[in-house]
Amino acid sequence: MSPSIDIHTSQPAPASTHAPVKAAAPTLSAEEALRAKFMHLEHHINSLSRQRAPSPLKDILQFMRLDGMISLAGGLPHPSLFPFDSVHVSTYDSATRMAENPTDIAKVDICVEKQPGHSTDLATALQYGPFNGIKPLMDWMTTFIERAFHPGYPEWQIIMDSGSTDGWAKVANLLLEDGDTMLVEQHTYPSGQALWIPMGVIAVPIDMDLDGLIPEALARTLDTWEAERPHQRKPKVLYCVPVGQNPTGSTLTAARKQAIYDICVRHDIVIVEDDPYYFMQLPTYRPNSKHAFPPPSDPFAFLGEMVPPFLHYDRDGRVIRLETVSKTVAPGFRTGFIICNPLFHERLARATEVTTQAPSGWSQAILCELLHTWGHDGYIRWLAGIRETYAVRRDWICDSIASHFDVDWDDVTADGVAVYAKNSGRANVLFRFVPPAAGMFLWLKLDLSGNPTYRRLCAAGAPAAEDAWAAAFWRELVAARVLLTPGTYYKPWQGTSVADAPAAPGHAFFRLAFSSTPREELDEGIRRMADVFSASWASA
Amino acid sequence: MSPSIDIHTSQPAPASTHAPVKAAAPTLSAEEALRAKFMHLEHHINSLSRQRAPSPLKDILQFMRLDGMISLAGGLPHPSLFPFDSVHVSTYDSATRMAENPTDIAKVDICVEKQPGHSTDLATALQYGPFNGIKPLMDWMTTFIERAFHPGYPEWQIIMDSGSTDGWAKVANLLLEDGDTMLVEQHTYPSGQALWIPMGVIAVPIDMDLDGLIPEALARTLDTWEAERPHQRKPKVLYCVPVGQNPTGSTLTAARKQAIYDICVRHDIVIVEDDPYYFMQLPTYRPNSKHAFPPPSDPFAFLGEMVPPFLHYDRDGRVIRLETVSKTVAPGFRTGFIICNPLFHERLARATEVTTQAPSGWSQAILCELLHTWGHDGYIRWLAGIRETYAVRRDWICDSIASHFDVDWDDVTADGVAVYAKNSGRANVLFRFVPPAAGMFLWLKLDLSGNPTYRRLCAAGAPAAEDAWAAAFWRELVAARVLLTPGTYYKPWQGTSVADAPAAPGHAFFRLAFSSTPREELDEGIRRMADVFSASWASA
Repeated sequence: MSPSIDIHTSQPAPASTHAPVKAAAPTLSAEEALRAKFMHLEHHINSLSRQRAPSPLKDILQFMRLDGMISLAGGLPHPSLFPFDSVHVSTYDSATRMAENPTDIAKVDICVEKQPGHSTDLATALQYGPFNGIKPLMDWMTTFIERAFHPGYPEWQIIMDSGSTDGWAKVANLLLEDGDTMLVEQHTYPSGQALWIPMGVIAVPIDMDLDGLIPEALARTLDTWEAERPHQRKPKVLYCVPVGQNPTGSTLTAARKQAIYDICVRHDIVIVEDDPYYFMQLPTYRPNSKHAFPPPSDPFAFLGEMVPPFLHYDRDGRVIRLETVSKTVAPGFRTGFIICNPLFHERLARATEVTTQAPSGWSQAILCELLHTWGHDGYIRWLAGIRETYAVRRDWICDSIASHFDVDWDDVTADGVAVYAKNSGRANVLFRFVPPAAGMFLWLKLDLSGNPTYRRLCAAGAPAAEDAWAAAFWRELVAARVLLTPGTYYKPWQGTSVADAPAAPGHAFFRLAFSSTPREELDEGIRRMADVFSASWASA
Repeated sequence: MSPSIDIHTSQPAPASTHAPVKAAAPTLSAEEALRAKFMHLEHHINSLSRQRAPSPLKDILQFMRLDGMISLAGGLPHPSLFPFDSVHVSTYDSATRMAENPTDIAKVDICVEKQPGHSTDLATALQYGPFNGIKPLMDWMTTFIERAFHPGYPEWQIIMDSGSTDGWAKVANLLLEDGDTMLVEQHTYPSGQALWIPMGVIAVPIDMDLDGLIPEALARTLDTWEAERPHQRKPKVLYCVPVGQNPTGSTLTAARKQAIYDICVRHDIVIVEDDPYYFMQLPTYRPNSKHAFPPPSDPFAFLGEMVPPFLHYDRDGRVIRLETVSKTVAPGFRTGFIICNPLFHERLARATEVTTQAPSGWSQAILCELLHTWGHDGYIRWLAGIRETYAVRRDWICDSIASHFDVDWDDVTADGVAVYAKNSGRANVLFRFVPPAAGMFLWLKLDLSGNPTYRRLCAAGAPAAEDAWAAAFWRELVAARVLLTPGTYYKPWQGTSVADAPAAPGHAFFRLAFSSTPREELDEGIRRMADVFSASWASA
């Protein structure tokens, strides 16, 4: 039976109802008392999640720890049968700077043995364990989160997931019901959306500009909800990528985060911040600057240079933060951390027990030993190096656009700077873009008003002319052997009735990633793109 | 848009509907044609799973492979930023025999480097990858499955999961709807059940005896369904643990598997075989035998000694097999394999993309290199060693029961052999048990008819007397410092109306695990248990 939730549960779980374990537990535990403090958010938990009960097998663990107990209850394989003795990983020193042509990479050998000795051991890490993974890793990450983010309330907790895609799946299955609406950015992350569409959730897109989600647009949608959409459920969740947003690359300012948080308090919205690019907040791009390498960031100053996360502004426990090492260490760890209030934490634990249990023991052991070897300062130094690398790559792509197009840096609107074909006399703006202040992506907002093909489509009364134009243009890019991601991929799903509406009339969108293409290749890609633009706008 | 399912989909996914990628794909691919062969099972796919669409971002991968393409579409972190050079794992030689007091463990060092060289490389394994993980591991496992199980039809496919708990969660979310009924064993695995209860699924338990699920009982339930339960949905799924069943330790014979499969064909049931103990099928226990170590099993004979899985009997593609390395290598890999038909496979792939993506790259790389180093024969040799270890431990626990109780080996019923208190004149059978033919568990079926406390409870008209008695008895065991798992944990959830009914009137159940307790401790545990039994049956 689910503690602190069971009063709302219509269908008790049989196993623990009958479990003798429960017979002797009449008083509220410290954990239950803590969860009770967040019961004001209890109505956010969906009906599936309310019904979850702890596995009785896991409940019995406490009895194993009694003095002198001989346990025949566990059913674990014996660790002597794990055919491994130790793992050694040759890793980089945290001071390694990877920005351009690294030559002299210093190496550190990290090691985890089967028996205790280092930060953890394989006998523990490779065994079945609690949903929350190995303790030294959780302890390290907990103190790091406190230092890096200064969460706005003291009772926050963390639970491991198998990467943020898995984390989002668990959070969506905690909060969302069939028929719900959900607030999302005007252009939203398709892999997140691929989860919620089959669940019967309808997106409510909120307008963005060069600084991301617009607080006034959010307030307007919520304040006028009952009047404008009387027959639709009001949203209870905002899903967003606040830093280096995928796909637009936009990053919320501190003032916007505070404003959005306040609106969410007023309307009782839970904010899910999916924030893989947080530590990739980049120094402002300056056109035509020399790209001399900056000196290594001071690890102690580095954290303070980041715009704080929603978690930092959270007083209520209404922010759920998805933290991951996929962009800072490697995606293959499939390891992330959900930071949330104790009430949600307990329900996510129940969901984790019956799905992924805990992330891979190899991932946990290697991450644990890496972080303990590097230490907080070392990890921060490594993060600063990662940021430097992406700053350099961001500069490459912006410089390349400036060299193959004609950019008017002085003409800045909410969509970014104006870009024209080279030597075109600035007759037609082709697109606008914002030099990314974070992350891996650069977003083009194409202005189709001067494009001959688009005009013909409109004149012929073609339905969904923007999308049809974008599809044809994308094929021309493919033919020229440069692959961009079509902006249509990021269109929030608002139900069949509006599926064909363009994201913005008279505009089309493409996403460019600058994270991993080598410099010369990136530049050649932008050159090819410029040729396709010129040809398309020149066609008569 | 979901290929081969989309004709049934009421809500298309917006992203790929508009994706230019799809515009040029009018004909049925080889994969789609293969799935079409299994469309006779299409009605088994639940409404959530029907709605899933491929992530358009993953769809675009094929275009990256075009000659000369410069991709700005991916958004992957650059592998040079993964701070790892190589991983070395000191592993055991596959011929190592761990059964008792291993002394001379031969070691083999396995290694995976960042750059290609061994069976796989870290640049690939630690990157985002397709849902199906790294190819050399999948190829190895595919040929092994063919050799080990001889699946009954050629088109079977495998997909990775993050361990069988995750695999079962994905399969349950593929097949089950709120309000469904599902066939399960009379005593069923609580962690499996903890998933389906909140989904609104009601269990239909099928009687078992010493050889597990009784085919005639299954046939009776299904043949009489419409007459007996006209207002309840007929089950479409059988969930079972066919070998070393958890909790009863029972193992289906080949004849029973064939009979159960035939019944499931007749009634259009999908069989989910959750089979972690398959390779731990043990030689028959012989009381009072000398436990001389048998010679190492011939790896070539070993596989033939196993009762084949349901998969082997499958002609239709109606068996979903959950395969795992948790019991044969280590649970911490959080890596398993779902074996199923191509139609289900494609839907599971869509679910995997939006949840776990792929198992940990560390787990995959290390497992891949281990299996390639050992080879098929080496892995089989290792499995034979694992079996030997559990055979020895099974013998320990059975011998210990024989030494602390009075076992009448000649009195065998469908519940196993009769066990009395030592020197009690065989007045009251305390319990019956079957020496396990597989796995890690031994199951006690207590006969309460001669127990004074139980008789008093019945005379007083106590509700749920069996469960109340078992709870009190379990507390006495805890007080004597021996921990068993209460049988009530395994009671299938049949809805509130029957939640209080005993699993079997006049009986109680406990599960004993013999997998990891050292011999002397195990024996002392059984001695303590014998004392508690004697005291309880003697109390007046």
